[in-house]
Amino acid sequence: MAEEEGLTELELAIYALVSNFFKYVSKRSLVRNKISKSNLRKMLQKEFPHMLTDTRNRKAADKLIQNLDANNDGLISFEEYWTLIGGITSPIAKLIRQQEQQNCD
Amino acid sequence: MAEEEGLTELELAIYALVSNFFKYVSKRSLVRNKISKSNLRKMLQKEFPHMLTDTRNRKAADKLIQNLDANNDGLISFEEYWTLIGGITSPIAKLIRQQEQQNCD
Repeated sequence: MAEEEGLTELELAIYALVSNFFKYVSKRSLVRNKISKSNLRKMLQKEFPHMLTDTRNRKAADKLIQNLDANNDGLISFEEYWTLIGGITSPIAKLIRQQEQQNCD
Repeated sequence: MAEEEGLTELELAIYALVSNFFKYVSKRSLVRNKISKSNLRKMLQKEFPHMLTDTRNRKAADKLIQNLDANNDGLISFEEYWTLIGGITSPIAKLIRQQEQQNCD
């Protein structure tokens, strides 16, 4: 992603997450701006490899995707994508924080 | 934030959002790992200035913070923080996408 002038680090982070969503939006789907479940799984494997190396995290992600399935339209909206990533991140947020602090030592 | 070796752009984006949460965690609070509402407002002004320049976005953010207030503990957990940022981003996701595409032209 090109660095937009003047955006903060946090805004760039959000832009990256938005771009990533649209990168995986199903082009074949008649419903616009949604990701298919199969594309979502591909995305998690490719874009979040380190966050899902732990088996527990991978199982948690699978469970979260299954819960999204419950919506029954088989496609993931931006809101659902955001919720999913939050659901993966939230249980490991403290761990990420610890890693960050170690890197700063 | 130091760039952790081997992390993808998306993982770095998430790490930045996690770091930002802990940066604003109230140090005085007895409840750990939560952000006070006043710190949350400061954070939004400082870290997301371009995303909230539009009056409509700012009003939407205010409304979202008020809704978080409804939880009544007066402190924002990581999950609530994630939901809030998703709530700000979601309505402007398409706009962000358009800006990105213009920058790539």
